[in-house]
Amino acid sequence: MIILGIDPGSRFLGYGVVSVQGTKMTPIDYGVLKFDPDVPLSERLQSIGLGVRELFDRYKPEHLSLEKIFLGKNADSAFKMGHARGVVIYESLLANCKVYEYATRVVKKGITGNGGAEKEHVRLVVRNMLQIGPVKSLDASDALAMACFHATQLRMIDLKQRSKQQELA
Amino acid sequence: MIILGIDPGSRFLGYGVVSVQGTKMTPIDYGVLKFDPDVPLSERLQSIGLGVRELFDRYKPEHLSLEKIFLGKNADSAFKMGHARGVVIYESLLANCKVYEYATRVVKKGITGNGGAEKEHVRLVVRNMLQIGPVKSLDASDALAMACFHATQLRMIDLKQRSKQQELA
Repeated sequence: MIILGIDPGSRFLGYGVVSVQGTKMTPIDYGVLKFDPDVPLSERLQSIGLGVRELFDRYKPEHLSLEKIFLGKNADSAFKMGHARGVVIYESLLANCKVYEYATRVVKKGITGNGGAEKEHVRLVVRNMLQIGPVKSLDASDALAMACFHATQLRMIDLKQRSKQQELA
Repeated sequence: MIILGIDPGSRFLGYGVVSVQGTKMTPIDYGVLKFDPDVPLSERLQSIGLGVRELFDRYKPEHLSLEKIFLGKNADSAFKMGHARGVVIYESLLANCKVYEYATRVVKKGITGNGGAEKEHVRLVVRNMLQIGPVKSLDASDALAMACFHATQLRMIDLKQRSKQQELA
């Protein structure tokens, strides 16, 4: 199964593509899509949508693991972020890719054992999990962490189902 | 020119399609797209996007006149609204339809002369402007008001350009 992790933003959008087979995770691709902040948000949405559409077309992920955003007191930035996220979710649905959302704290806790871990720490653990070299962008490593965390969640669901089947047998 | 007015919402989305030729405005269609509030927002986005895509495909508007939202203190609802609006703007751009945004107060003021006018009052004026019978939904009449207001704005820009050309002549 291919999982696409996305750390969404209207200026930088981190992505990480991971292939999962049993307990084995293989990194396929990762990086950052950059959008010009001088272009009005409404126009940037087209680049955001078509950018992620390319990822869905190229890697055909079955699941999208998306950062659930903590809503601070700033309604304006929540509003802007909502526009970008809406387009990402929309393109995922159009590509028949199921959407899963996880709060950053939960992902950090799952990956590093500490919900308040620094991004650099998350990157180090992710690089180790996937056995990859330097990852320049913290948005990309965050996105890879989203994908890896979702893979571990799937495995846990799978294990639970299996132990239930054993109980019943 | 065809103008599509949209009053966006994640539960009810009002739309109004108006054809403009010189000072003449002709109503083409109006109504409401309804979305099931029991369906999670992330899934509703697909219905919202494909619903407006159908409007763009059917009427091929050149301009979208979209309600600019007043951000209250509720970051959560601004966030949700942002998702829906993002998808509407995205589909507009994909349809090569230019996006114009107007605050409700500005549209109400332009249409009725009073920025704080009741929705029922706006509906009455719009029905009169377009010479149409009863409009059941206030979301639809709001959307028609968005389209009509944009038409008057275009006319004003046109008049200004013409008087400038006369000055130069």
